[in-house]
Amino acid sequence: MSTRNIQVTLASRPVGWVKESDLKIVESDIPKPGPGQVLVRNLWLSLDPYMRGRMNDVRSYAESVKIGGVMVGGTVGEVVESNNPSFKSGDHVLGYYGWQLYGISDGRELQKVDSKAAPLSAYLGVLGMPGLTAWFGLIDIGAPKAGETGVVSAAAGAVGSVVGQIAKIKGCRAVGIAGGKAKCDHVVKDLGFDACVDYKAGNLAGDLSAATPKGIDIYFENVGGDVLEAVAMRLNPFARIPLCGLISQYNEVRPRGLNNLVLLLINRVKLQGFIVSDYMDRAAPALAELSKWVAEGKIKYRETIAEGIENAPRAFIGMLKGANVGKQLVKLA
Amino acid sequence: MSTRNIQVTLASRPVGWVKESDLKIVESDIPKPGPGQVLVRNLWLSLDPYMRGRMNDVRSYAESVKIGGVMVGGTVGEVVESNNPSFKSGDHVLGYYGWQLYGISDGRELQKVDSKAAPLSAYLGVLGMPGLTAWFGLIDIGAPKAGETGVVSAAAGAVGSVVGQIAKIKGCRAVGIAGGKAKCDHVVKDLGFDACVDYKAGNLAGDLSAATPKGIDIYFENVGGDVLEAVAMRLNPFARIPLCGLISQYNEVRPRGLNNLVLLLINRVKLQGFIVSDYMDRAAPALAELSKWVAEGKIKYRETIAEGIENAPRAFIGMLKGANVGKQLVKLA
Repeated sequence: MSTRNIQVTLASRPVGWVKESDLKIVESDIPKPGPGQVLVRNLWLSLDPYMRGRMNDVRSYAESVKIGGVMVGGTVGEVVESNNPSFKSGDHVLGYYGWQLYGISDGRELQKVDSKAAPLSAYLGVLGMPGLTAWFGLIDIGAPKAGETGVVSAAAGAVGSVVGQIAKIKGCRAVGIAGGKAKCDHVVKDLGFDACVDYKAGNLAGDLSAATPKGIDIYFENVGGDVLEAVAMRLNPFARIPLCGLISQYNEVRPRGLNNLVLLLINRVKLQGFIVSDYMDRAAPALAELSKWVAEGKIKYRETIAEGIENAPRAFIGMLKGANVGKQLVKLA
Repeated sequence: MSTRNIQVTLASRPVGWVKESDLKIVESDIPKPGPGQVLVRNLWLSLDPYMRGRMNDVRSYAESVKIGGVMVGGTVGEVVESNNPSFKSGDHVLGYYGWQLYGISDGRELQKVDSKAAPLSAYLGVLGMPGLTAWFGLIDIGAPKAGETGVVSAAAGAVGSVVGQIAKIKGCRAVGIAGGKAKCDHVVKDLGFDACVDYKAGNLAGDLSAATPKGIDIYFENVGGDVLEAVAMRLNPFARIPLCGLISQYNEVRPRGLNNLVLLLINRVKLQGFIVSDYMDRAAPALAELSKWVAEGKIKYRETIAEGIENAPRAFIGMLKGANVGKQLVKLA
């Protein structure tokens, strides 16, 4: 166990692609919990695409990370010292301590999690923010009906993998879009999607047509760019597009959107941006359903694990480039 | 009264901007109504932006006009001969006979209109398809709440002018976007919008900011292109965009959409394409409300009238370029 706190801070705001030098590894003392406070040793750090947005200095739904500030992020850890009657040493908690080995807080934003019900890391993935993102985006905005075709980009990722499996549970044809044969094989063979289109194979439009013979009723959007443009050509009347992410554009200095907007008009398509944190008042029943599906084997998940906080910057950059399969985590201890 | 039918047909599919030579004026005999049929002399022809789409040979919600076919369009006319017990000579009817002086049909799609309740031309404008387009787009998708800011592009047009006035009735700040000082003056002084931004004045982003000090909650989209890009920068969280038209793009060989799609994501914006014909089962109560507002002077309207069917092509091209104020009509008789 480290006797020092190690943190990753934002050294400079990236222009275009994130470089390792935009992030800095710093050491400090382990903080001492004051009255009412809890000290947590983080065991797992979640790496997620939204973090790229927090590195920019623009108005958004959440504050930017300041230069010199600790990078934000979800964590699962163990209480090591508590001056708060709600927590005791050894409790496992889901928190938002960011990229660091230790975190301190008054406990208000901490949630206890049960390491017997699921592996701790699952609370950062299928039973956490990514799983809820899939659930609310697909079910609330996508409104899947049996017999429809649902397509999801970044299908091998933490969110996309859950989206397609929920679509299957709801009786839809589930089609993934992912980069490379290995990811596509995983999506179809391990996760049970009906088809997966490899956007790197050079025939996106044709392959997507073949995979969606009845057109597309729901497109769960994680990536944007060329993929969105190709999907737009296959949209059915009254299609829904939950707009969850645009990872292909986060590192572009001049982002692209959707040129063929007229297709949304003539097909009466609804495109709706959403952020999972807006749905937290309904998280409990959604998590209960996700937990049940995982327990029943209807939702499977995979993790890509980087070892040690020193490797978090490289793993994060890799994730932005699509190097991960499933949930990208950093094992901190 | 013409003793011949005069029609405007599609001579060639335009590439980019419509040219007068893409349309052809042809003469033919006045058709004879068969059993159960009605012959109507058209008095007014509606010219609308959607017609540009019908000139293209692409999959859409409605069939393309065939080469050599009569251009489609809404008409108001007078029954001159009827073999259908539902109609008699002298009845005024709203129909969809297209760009021609006479039309014949079995009467199923005809609706009688009352020339005493409103001028006949109004049934092609504020009390017709454009008025209903404004009503359903703003109220159903825009869901205006008192105190919000609603912005509409093509604000001096047949749809936009009604959108802003309904927004005012619903207690919103109504802001128009239009091309040129004359249109903007009309929108503010005659129609009662709170402000109007002249997108041709060279300071779209700055003028739009000044006109929307509390941001934008509803953007009723008629034009696309630069205007949409500028509006996106002012959208508030949970804004709604009824996507009604993209007139700035209809004549572009390579259309542009919205580059800054990430703004819809971080602000959780709903953008929804719609077509008024999907709402016809609810037209009656909407029309009743529009009629009441017109009668009470809460909704005002203006018309731009071309005289004679021979001038329809020029008037149509003019409308696509924004030459009209209010509803563009052709007076046929």
